[in-house]
This record gives sequence, C-alpha cells and structure tokens, in this order.
Amino acid sequence: MTNVPSQGLRPLAESFPRSHKIQVGDLQVPARDIHLTNGDVVRVYDTTGPQGHAPQQGLPKRRQPWVDARVARGDRNFSQMHYARRGIVTEEMRFVAIRENCDPEFVRSEIARGRAIIPANRKHPECEPMIIGRNFLVKINANIGNSALGSSIDEEVEKLQWSIRWGADTVMDLSTGKNLRDTREWILRNSPVPIGTVPIYEALERVQGRVEDLNLKMYLEVLEEQAEQGVDYFTIHAGVLLRHVPLTAERVTGIVSRGGSIMAKWCLHHHQENFLYTGFREICELMQRYDVSFSLGDGLRPGSIADANDAAQFGELEALGELTKIAWEHDVQTMIEGPGHVPMHLIKENMDRQLAVCHEAPFYTLGPLTTDIAPGYDHITSGIGAAIIGSMGTAMLCYVTPKEHLGLPDREDVKQGVITYKIAAHAADLAKGHKGAQDRDNALSKARFEFRWEDQFNLALDPETARKYHDATLPQDGAKVAHFCSMCGPRFCSMKITEEVREYAKKGMAAKSEEFAARGAVIQ
Amino acid sequence: MTNVPSQGLRPLAESFPRSHKIQVGDLQVPARDIHLTNGDVVRVYDTTGPQGHAPQQGLPKRRQPWVDARVARGDRNFSQMHYARRGIVTEEMRFVAIRENCDPEFVRSEIARGRAIIPANRKHPECEPMIIGRNFLVKINANIGNSALGSSIDEEVEKLQWSIRWGADTVMDLSTGKNLRDTREWILRNSPVPIGTVPIYEALERVQGRVEDLNLKMYLEVLEEQAEQGVDYFTIHAGVLLRHVPLTAERVTGIVSRGGSIMAKWCLHHHQENFLYTGFREICELMQRYDVSFSLGDGLRPGSIADANDAAQFGELEALGELTKIAWEHDVQTMIEGPGHVPMHLIKENMDRQLAVCHEAPFYTLGPLTTDIAPGYDHITSGIGAAIIGSMGTAMLCYVTPKEHLGLPDREDVKQGVITYKIAAHAADLAKGHKGAQDRDNALSKARFEFRWEDQFNLALDPETARKYHDATLPQDGAKVAHFCSMCGPRFCSMKITEEVREYAKKGMAAKSEEFAARGAVIQ
Repeated sequence: MTNVPSQGLRPLAESFPRSHKIQVGDLQVPARDIHLTNGDVVRVYDTTGPQGHAPQQGLPKRRQPWVDARVARGDRNFSQMHYARRGIVTEEMRFVAIRENCDPEFVRSEIARGRAIIPANRKHPECEPMIIGRNFLVKINANIGNSALGSSIDEEVEKLQWSIRWGADTVMDLSTGKNLRDTREWILRNSPVPIGTVPIYEALERVQGRVEDLNLKMYLEVLEEQAEQGVDYFTIHAGVLLRHVPLTAERVTGIVSRGGSIMAKWCLHHHQENFLYTGFREICELMQRYDVSFSLGDGLRPGSIADANDAAQFGELEALGELTKIAWEHDVQTMIEGPGHVPMHLIKENMDRQLAVCHEAPFYTLGPLTTDIAPGYDHITSGIGAAIIGSMGTAMLCYVTPKEHLGLPDREDVKQGVITYKIAAHAADLAKGHKGAQDRDNALSKARFEFRWEDQFNLALDPETARKYHDATLPQDGAKVAHFCSMCGPRFCSMKITEEVREYAKKGMAAKSEEFAARGAVIQ
Repeated sequence: MTNVPSQGLRPLAESFPRSHKIQVGDLQVPARDIHLTNGDVVRVYDTTGPQGHAPQQGLPKRRQPWVDARVARGDRNFSQMHYARRGIVTEEMRFVAIRENCDPEFVRSEIARGRAIIPANRKHPECEPMIIGRNFLVKINANIGNSALGSSIDEEVEKLQWSIRWGADTVMDLSTGKNLRDTREWILRNSPVPIGTVPIYEALERVQGRVEDLNLKMYLEVLEEQAEQGVDYFTIHAGVLLRHVPLTAERVTGIVSRGGSIMAKWCLHHHQENFLYTGFREICELMQRYDVSFSLGDGLRPGSIADANDAAQFGELEALGELTKIAWEHDVQTMIEGPGHVPMHLIKENMDRQLAVCHEAPFYTLGPLTTDIAPGYDHITSGIGAAIIGSMGTAMLCYVTPKEHLGLPDREDVKQGVITYKIAAHAADLAKGHKGAQDRDNALSKARFEFRWEDQFNLALDPETARKYHDATLPQDGAKVAHFCSMCGPRFCSMKITEEVREYAKKGMAAKSEEFAARGAVIQ
C-alpha cells in the first residue's frame, strides 16, 4: 500500500463561490447560504462538515457533551429509538429537526415507530446528526474503501471529504485489504457524516479467508471493536437463510453480494442456519449499547435484470422483516437494504413489499440499475431507478459510480456518482412534494431566465462544471452578463423574446385598463 | 465560420470490436452482429449507416427505385399513411418490420391509424427507414446544428456521423447561422437516419430577424425548398395560439422554445391568430407531396419545474390534437412534441393527456428534466424523465446533452447525450416488456458472471469506455480472463463464491437423488 502524504483538497470556497457555511441555533446546525447577485439568499442542506482540520487531529467532538450526560446518568441502551419510545427528544433529534425544517416531536415519533433512524454511535462524537426516513429529505450514501488491489489510507480520507463535499449524507467504508482498522479510525475521526461498514469483511480477514471458520463469537468481537471505534451502522446479512440458497442456483447471476455469498457458502458448508440469524439477539444487545444501527443487508439481491424480484430476493426480504421486529424489541434502529438490478416496471413491487413485510422500516437501495447493457454508465442506469424508487418512499439511495462492475472508482468517479445521486434524491423530493424542496429549482430557473449567469452557476449542484461548460463556448467575462446565451445567439434568444412578450402583454393590459376606465366602467 | 477539412472519425470497428454490420433479406436491412468468445452471436439494431463514403459524394440512394416506381405511376400523395390507409404495404413498411422483428401488416395498421410514423421524405433516398410509435422500440433523437456563434459544416456532418454511431435514430438540424442550406444539404446527403428541422429558423433568417415580417407565403417557400432537399420531418409550432400567449406571462420562465417565442411575438404584434394555424391545410397539402412528417412543436413547453403542466402548456396540447386530425385528413404523418421540465409526479399526466387529446399520435418529448438544479448534468436530470415517460408510451426521446442551458455541445457532449438516451430508451423497452429487448441484458449479464470480460465490453453500449474503465484498475491482459474482478480482488469475489455455491448445490441434489434412489422410491 502506498502511503503518500495527502495533497489535500482545494478549499470549499473554490467549489462553491459566494456560498457561506453557517451554523443555526444553539446546536450549531450546519447549512450553506448561497448569496445571489440580486441580494437574495438561498439556504441549502450542507454535509461538508467543519473545514480546515488536519486529518491527524480529526474533527471537533461536538456530540461529546450530549453523550457524556447520558453515560453519567447510567444509561445502558443508548439508541435514539430507546429514548424516542420513552418520549425523550434528544439533542440529535432537535438537531435533525432544524436541519430538516420540521418539528422535533415529529422526529421523535418517526423514530419511535421505526419509520426513521438517526445513525449516530455514541463513540462517533464528530458526527453531525442526520435522519433517514421517508418523511424526510431523501439521503444518499457513497461507498469508499481500499481493496486488496489498491488505494491508501490518505486516499480514502480524501475520498470521504470529496464525497461529502458534493453531498453524500453517509459514507460506507467497504475496505477489504490490510490496515482495515487504521483506515476506519482515520475515516471516523474525520467524518461529520455517519459511517457504515460490512463487518463480515473484517471477520473473514481474521480467519484468512476461510469462510467455514467464521463463527458468531469472533464476529461479535469484530462488531464490538468497530462499535468502539464509532461505526454508525452495520450491514449485516442475517436474512440469507439456508433455505434461500438453492433458490439462487438457476439465476443468471447467482449471488452478487459479497456478504451474501459469504454467508451462503457458510450455510452450505455447515448445513446449518446462518449464524447471524440464529445469533441475532446477541447482536442486538451489543448494538444497543453503542447505538449502532442495523442496515439489514440484502445478500440475495438480483445482480441482473433477469434475476429481479425472484423468490430468493423476496424470501430474504421476509426474513429481514422478521429480524426488524426483533431489532425493535431491543430498541435498535434498523433500515433495510434493497436491490440492485430491477427493470422500471418491477420497482414498485419492491417498495410495496418492503413497506409491507418490513413494517415501514426505512428502505435503503443500491440504485436499482434499470438495464444491464451500459457498463461505464451505471451511475446513469441506476440513477434512473434510484430517482423512481426514491419518489416511492425509499429513504436513502446508495450511489453507483461509472466504474461499477469494471474497476475501483477514482476521485472523479466518486464525484460523478454523488452528483448523479443528489439529482435522483432531489428529483424524488420534488416528486414527493417535500416542503421547500422546489425553492432551489425556482431560484435557479429565475436566475436563468433573468440572465444572472453567476447565480445560475452558484445555485447548481456543481458550480465549477456549470461555469466551465458555459466558458467552453463563451469564455469572455462579458458573456456572463449578456442577455442571451450561446445556444441561440442574440437574434433568436427565446428568453429575450419572452421578455418582450411580457412587456407587450403588460402594455396590452394597460391599454385595456385605460379603455375600461374611459368607458367609465366599474368593476362589479 | 471555420471550414477546416474534416479529420474524419475512426473506423467503426474500433468503436465496436468483434461486431459485424450485416444486411438482412432482400431489402438489405441493417443490423449489427456482436460475436462473443463463447460462439454466441447477439444481433442488435444498427443506426450507423453505410461506411466509407466520402462526405462530398454522400451515401448510396437505396430508396430511389422504390420512390421512382411511385412517381412513375403518377402518385400525388406520397405519405406512408396514405399508402397504409389504402392497404398498401410499402417497401419502407417491410423494411421496418424486419428491423423491428414484427409483422409488416402490423406496421401498416399502426401507420394507418396514426399511431406510428415512418419519417421518410421521398427526396431523401439515402434514408434507412425507421418507425416511431409506442408499439415499437423507443427511439431517440440527437440535435446538431451550428449557431451564429460557432461550428462549421464539416463539424456538423461529423456530429451527425458521431450521433448515429452511438445510436441516434433521427437527427435534427437546428442550425441558425449562415449557410443553412448548404449545411442541410451535406447533412441530408450523408444521413442514413431521418432528418428533422425547424423551418421557422430559416424563415426568420430571410426576414433579417424581423419576426413581424414573417408570413405564410414565404414560410411555404421555405418548406418547399427544405422538402425538396429531403428533410423528413418539420417541427411546426402551429399550436401556439393568440389566446395562449397571456397564459405565459406569469410563468417563472415564460416561453423557452425558440419557435414558440417567435410565434408568440408574431401573434402579439399583429394581434392575429398564428399563421401556421390558419394556414395549416396549405402546409398539409405541401407536405403530403413529399411525405414530410409533422412534428407538431410544443412552443409553450415549460422551461422550469415551476411551470410544468400549466394552462399554457395544456392549452397548446389541445390545439395540437385538433391539428393532428387535420393532418390526418390529408394523410400526413404526425407526431407531437412534448416537454421539457416536469417533476416526476407530473409526468404521467403529460402522457395520459397527450394520448387522449392527440388521438394516440406518437409522442416525442425533450427529456423531461426532473429538476432544475443541476446545470452541467442535464443529460442525467432529463434521462430520468425520459426513461419514465418512455416506459409510459412516449415513442421518441429527444436527447439533452451535458451542455444544455450552458453552451454548444461538442463531440463528447453529443456522445454523452446519445448514450444516456439509449439507456433511457432501452430501460423503457424493458419496462414495456418489448419482445426480445432483454436478450442483450441477459447476454451481457451472463458474460459478466462468467468472467468473459471481452464479451461484457463488446455487448456494452460503449465498449471503448467499458474497456478503458476496466483497464484503469487492471491494465494487464491477464486480468481480462481472470476469474475475479478489481472491485473485490481474488479472495472476496462473490461471483467466484457463487460458482462454488452452485457446485455445492448440484452435489447436494445429486446426494439427495442417490438417497432417494437408495430408498427405492418412485416419483409419483
């Protein structure tokens, strides 16, 4: 592994001109104000976290006092669900209520009934709380992680920072190589967003890749160590049951989830039920002590259009519903992972079934990819599915990069994946009629129509790229204030003509008013 | 305008390794066979046209004998609809039937009832006929065209060739600068796909941009000249009526269609009804003599999420429905253009209304963009909407490039736009359950699962990019036959584990069979 010192990212202000990070209220909830040239300010959700801290030192531990108070009074179950069910509105709940512009009591009630989660391990005090649930803004996750074949720790921390710069709400560390523990430590200490992991990867590392040697005891040790570090949610493939495995044998693409295939192999080898399933209550007991949330893994998700919505997939989903109830008995926060590869007409069935059999626990899907024929563009094949399933109620969308199926994403791939998924999530928010979601669209469209080019750039998800594309055709500074654009040129500009139409319509109305007044008429 | 000699594109074979263009049947219908390493052949739809012809000479005039026979027998109305309604199955109908793998009589009946069109001007004999209708494969259109500010004729011909290389089914020439006629001539003589134009642009050029000087007589002259050149369909904004114009005054983004704003301005200036509307029958009479198809323009389409599905948009749509009936009285083939910017939850209303008020004439939409906040990524914001509206029955999707709203697309932008829309169209075909559409997905997924990397690349929409992304992580040749991939490395490879699971499952079944046999049991 290389260990070249990080080059660091360019300052945030270069990515977002005329934006100011602000902190709202006594809890110092982050947001970003975009200052427009017409004096308007548009406030947007912000995931970028505190800036200017050296990776070696990590971020400020903002949640430490909240957590300390709970430890001091002798709490044993630290889960937000536990507090919510007892009618307690925690600082985390107040924090997300400000962030989401809603009532803290509503946050509490959604968490209490299991319809939303705040992944926030008490050992991850650097985390800025966020909420995942279908009555809140749709969230997105970015995956990072070295593998046996590439990337260093520094690169991974930079990928984290890069992901949240463009809007990732949570980040999963999927590292599978050496130095798992150190990589994770660096990531956690520098992450203002919840971090998820798939602990079976580290467990397998400890038994030198011999799947058959995996067992509950050592798996719980891995969980405990990762929970102590501060991991906020664990993907656990506890729903891959022995009886499901033969259902995959005739699939076009068998089992494509790493965790799922590991557990399937273990089940077959021992001809025993999945130890994550049989040991699920012990896992719950461990997780409640930290408030680590479950992300119940879909180990049998379809890996191709041909395998979508089959018996294996839905069989596992039912098992996840059963496990959700057990997790809730322990007040452990829970979300459910979903596919995968699903053609558009089969997406709704996924959402409907998940809501029904998993008792409205938040759904967290990978895409889904709506076709298999475009490797190199799977951020797009899956962005389509993500937008659709998000609009139907999926609470978080796991991004897919252009390198999916082909290789490891580099920085540009991560950015493409995150931006594509911000688009999908926001399109879903609009479709759900989420309060205030359209404000940014309206501000940007108004800026566009009024030829306020700088404002149009700065309101964009990616101001740098918007400006660069504009300048590729019209680089002159004058073109940024021109009352026409490069597509049509001055003569044909439809926006310019509309201005004239408006002027004309106004005059027409004025003329009619005069005529009306001249006739001495009175409005009835 | 620059007029640098074309550099030419690299040979087709470099973009599509192990692919062979073939010609099927007596009509020599083009297709592309992708030869896989396991001996399988996957045949795909092909829009690339004859290769190796110098732009100065143009393509072979394959339709000339068919057209000559019709001229010789004294036909006056050359439209495919005219023949279809008289029970005649033309060569064009047989051609598309082979291309779409369906019955020629079905093609005829769909055209006769106006539910599909074959845009094929008799003066464009280079055209390889294709069909646009919701019971056929979803098609995509790419826009090219110089503007007052950029690009040369050679560049435009290369953009045409580049667009069809990646799968554009039709191309619109939206040039607005000088040399309109020459540019169009070059494009037509080198185009195997139907070419569409917006004739009002040229009409406006002839009156030096003075909108008020436009009139039906000179517009008909423009139509005649363009029809003589071979343009296959005209976008005509005949549905922008005087009474609609004030409905746009309070919009966030007014009128954003160039054609729409020109006609609105004309209507207001003269305080008269749109001359394209009042002169519509004369236009029909002209178009039937060439078989130019209508693409009835949506001049009042929404230019922002805020303006979607408003009174102006739907008022115009009703007018287009009325005009469709008139066009059909003349046996002129007709499709209807649609928006624009529409949030996901309002897309269905567009499709439902269009089918209802336009009597099932094919719908041809621009996107729609599902959010306004991502300039620089509008191929993606709109690809989401395009896939959705395609799955609901839209017959053709007009692409949007990453430069939309910002500047003029270059070659890479055109490619990104076309590939994104091929994804949207194919995802829609899958969702509609179009016969055979899933074959390519299945072949690619099977290749992926069996680690046939070369086949995975070659079955992709863009083999070059898929290969490049793979090689960025694992450049060695050996990695193209490795039974694992770069995402997981050898130890964790889930596909490899699935193979073992299958092997195991087989053994398990074998053991059970033996047990069964040993018990002397007989299957009941």
